[in-house]
Amino acid sequence: MTTSPRIDLDRLLRRLDTFNQIGALPGGGNCRLALTDEDRAGRDLLVRWMRELGLIVTIDAIGNIVGVRGGREDLPPVMFGSHIDTVGTGGRYDGLYGVLAGLETCAALNDAGRATRRPLALVAFTNEEGSRFAPYAMGSLVYVGGLSLDDAYAVRGIDGATVGEELRRIGYVGDARPGFLAPHAYLELHIEQGPVLESEGLVIGAVEGITGLSWTEVSITGRAAHAGTTPMQLRRDAACATGEIALFVRRLAQSMGGHQKGTVGRIELYPNLVNVIAERALLTIDLRNPNESLLQEAERQLTDFLDRLAAQEQVAIATRSLARFVPVAFPTEMVSLIETTARELDLACRRLPSGAGHDAQMMARICPATMIFVPSVGGLSHNVREYTAPEHLNAGASVLLHAALRLAD
Amino acid sequence: MTTSPRIDLDRLLRRLDTFNQIGALPGGGNCRLALTDEDRAGRDLLVRWMRELGLIVTIDAIGNIVGVRGGREDLPPVMFGSHIDTVGTGGRYDGLYGVLAGLETCAALNDAGRATRRPLALVAFTNEEGSRFAPYAMGSLVYVGGLSLDDAYAVRGIDGATVGEELRRIGYVGDARPGFLAPHAYLELHIEQGPVLESEGLVIGAVEGITGLSWTEVSITGRAAHAGTTPMQLRRDAACATGEIALFVRRLAQSMGGHQKGTVGRIELYPNLVNVIAERALLTIDLRNPNESLLQEAERQLTDFLDRLAAQEQVAIATRSLARFVPVAFPTEMVSLIETTARELDLACRRLPSGAGHDAQMMARICPATMIFVPSVGGLSHNVREYTAPEHLNAGASVLLHAALRLAD
Repeated sequence: MTTSPRIDLDRLLRRLDTFNQIGALPGGGNCRLALTDEDRAGRDLLVRWMRELGLIVTIDAIGNIVGVRGGREDLPPVMFGSHIDTVGTGGRYDGLYGVLAGLETCAALNDAGRATRRPLALVAFTNEEGSRFAPYAMGSLVYVGGLSLDDAYAVRGIDGATVGEELRRIGYVGDARPGFLAPHAYLELHIEQGPVLESEGLVIGAVEGITGLSWTEVSITGRAAHAGTTPMQLRRDAACATGEIALFVRRLAQSMGGHQKGTVGRIELYPNLVNVIAERALLTIDLRNPNESLLQEAERQLTDFLDRLAAQEQVAIATRSLARFVPVAFPTEMVSLIETTARELDLACRRLPSGAGHDAQMMARICPATMIFVPSVGGLSHNVREYTAPEHLNAGASVLLHAALRLAD
Repeated sequence: MTTSPRIDLDRLLRRLDTFNQIGALPGGGNCRLALTDEDRAGRDLLVRWMRELGLIVTIDAIGNIVGVRGGREDLPPVMFGSHIDTVGTGGRYDGLYGVLAGLETCAALNDAGRATRRPLALVAFTNEEGSRFAPYAMGSLVYVGGLSLDDAYAVRGIDGATVGEELRRIGYVGDARPGFLAPHAYLELHIEQGPVLESEGLVIGAVEGITGLSWTEVSITGRAAHAGTTPMQLRRDAACATGEIALFVRRLAQSMGGHQKGTVGRIELYPNLVNVIAERALLTIDLRNPNESLLQEAERQLTDFLDRLAAQEQVAIATRSLARFVPVAFPTEMVSLIETTARELDLACRRLPSGAGHDAQMMARICPATMIFVPSVGGLSHNVREYTAPEHLNAGASVLLHAALRLAD
C-alpha cells in the first residue's frame, strides 16, 4: 500500500533531542568539534539510525558517512545532507538539522512504501565547521577533489593533533574513495544563521549562492620585556599590534558596507602573562563578501594595513592563508525547484544568498546543487541559544522531501 | 688564618651555568614558573649548595628557603637573597643572580675564615614573579604577614592548580612559620631590568624605592555569533572590546607620561575559533607608577573607560584586583650604605627607583631594606636574551658582600 509521504515532526524532534545529548554543554547548546570523542559518538548514533532505516552505509577515507536508499533504476543518486560537527559554542540545529531531516525524509518514504526512480543518498560530511581543523567543509572539499587526502590528513588542529591521527583514533577512516558516488544533484537543508527570513516573516529561503571567504592566520613577533621597567616608547608589543588588527578588521567591514564581514575570532599570546610584554601573537581573520572583486579589495586593504602596522609597531608580521573560496552561484533551475516546491506546499519563500559557507558550495563543483534555509530566531547561530521553531523545522524538512522526490523521479 | 673576603667570580658564573640548566629553553633563557617541577629541581639544588657551605636550612610553610650562617652573637640576622622562579620567557639572571651572589657571599666568608657578629640569612622567596599565581612576591608577602597562609594556598593559577596543591606536590610545605626569623636588615641584589645604568655608564644602582603597582583582571561577556552571517552593527564582540582595552591602556600610559606604565600581557578568548565572534574574553592590565596619587588617577581613568566601553560595545565588563601595592621608599641610611660601599670599592653608582616589584618591597614592612642594581644590557628582562656582563655581576656581588658585612658587624 502506498500513501503520500509526509514528515513526522515528532519523530524528527525526538531524534534532534536524543542526538543533542551528545556533546551537550551545561547551559544549553552543544560542542561536538570535528573528530573528537563527541563527534565519534554522534557518528555512531547516525550510522545506527541509517541502518535501522535500511540504508546501505559507506564510510569514505576522509570519514564522510553516506547512507544509500536504493532506487528503481541504477542511476546517479540524489544526494542530500549536511554535517553533525559543531563549533565550540554550537547550537542544536546548525548542520544536524539537515542530516536528521534527510533521515526523516528516508523514514517518511519508507513509511509510505514509496520507491524512487533514482537512489537517494544521505550524507554527513566530515569537519564542516573548520573550527578545530582548517579549512571548513573539509569532508566535502576532499569529496569533490578540491583537497588531496594526504593534505587533509596532515592538517594540524588548534590542539596540535592532525586530522589523520584523529580520524584513525575515532575509527572513521573508511575504505571508500571520497567521491565514490557521483550525484545527480545535491540538496542541503540548513538554518539560515542570519536574520533575513525572520525579519520578513518568511518560512523558506531558496539559496542563490554562497559568499566568498578568506581566512588568514597572522603571526606577530615583537619583543618580550618587563612590564614594569620597559619605557612605553621602546616596546614592541605583540598584544597592542593584535588590538590594532582586531579594530582595523571591524573598521574595514564597516567602511566597505554591503555584505562585507570581518572578524577576529581567535587570539593567542605568548608568553601570555600579566607582567610580560607579549613577545608573540597568533590570530585569525575571517573576511567574507558575496562579490569576489570586493573580497579581493578587502584583502588588499588588509595587506596594506599589516605592512604599515609592522613598521609602526616595530614588529614582524607573517600571514598564512587558512582557507580561500570564491563566491558560488547555484544553478537557476535548482533555485527555482526550491521556490516551486515551497509554493506547492504553501510556504512563503524568497531567494537569498548565504553569508555562511556550507558543504553545498563544494558539491556545486561536481553536480547541480542548492540549499533550503529556514528561519533562525534573532539570526543567532554559532551560539548555544540558536533556535528554530518546530513549524519551521517541519516546513524545511517537507521542502527537502518533496524537492528530493522531484529530482529522483 | 683570616684573609680579606672576596667574591670568586668564576665560581659564581659556574653556579649560574649549572643552575640555569634547570628549565632551560631551547633557544636560550629559562622557564621555571613557580611551583612547577623545574622550580622544585632548582630548590633541591639550592638546598644542597646551602648545606655544602654549612648553612642551616629551614623551609617555611609557604616554601621560602632560608639558609643561616651563624654569627658570634645571637642577634637578629642580616638577611639577603631574592627568588629562583622565572616568568615564562625568563632570562638567566632575574632573581637567581641575587640568590647565587648571596651564596657566593657565604662561600667567600667561609674561604676567608671570616666570622660576623650577627648571623647571616640567605633567602629564596617563593613565587616572586606572580606569572603563574597572583600576586607576585607571594612568599615575602606571606613572610611579613601581608597575606595569610590560607589565602595564599587557595590562589588558583593560570593552569587551574592552586598554590597549596602545587606546594605539597613538589614537597616544599615546610614546618617553620613564615616570619620565623625577624631580620636586622634586608638586602636584595638584582639586575636593573631597565636601561638607566647602562645608558649612563654606571655599574651600581642604590635603589631608593619601588614603584606602586595595580594588577586588574578584566572579564568581558559579549555574544557568540556566526562570523559570516551576523551584521557588523548587531555584534557584541568580546575580541573587539579587548582590542580597545589594549590600545587604551597604552594611550593612558603615554598620555600620563613620566614613570607611568601600562601593559595588557594576557588575553584569553572563548570559544577562540576563527569563525565565531568571541563571546567572552579574559585579560590582565598591569599599571605602575612610583607616585601613589598618579597611580590612583590611572586607575580612575581606566575604570571610567571600561564603563564607557561596556555601553559602547554592548558587552558586560567585570573586574577583579589581582594585586595592588602602594609605592615603597627605602630608608635613606640603607640607600646611603649602598652608595658608600660602592664608592669604597671604586664602583660608579647612582640612586634610582625600581619600576619592577621585588621581595624587598615586602621585607621593607618589617625591617630596614634596600636593593643593589647592576646593569641590564639593552634594559631587557623577562626575555630570554636578558644579559649582564660578568664584571658587573662581580661588582654587584662585591657590594652585597661588603654591605652585608657592614650591617652584620
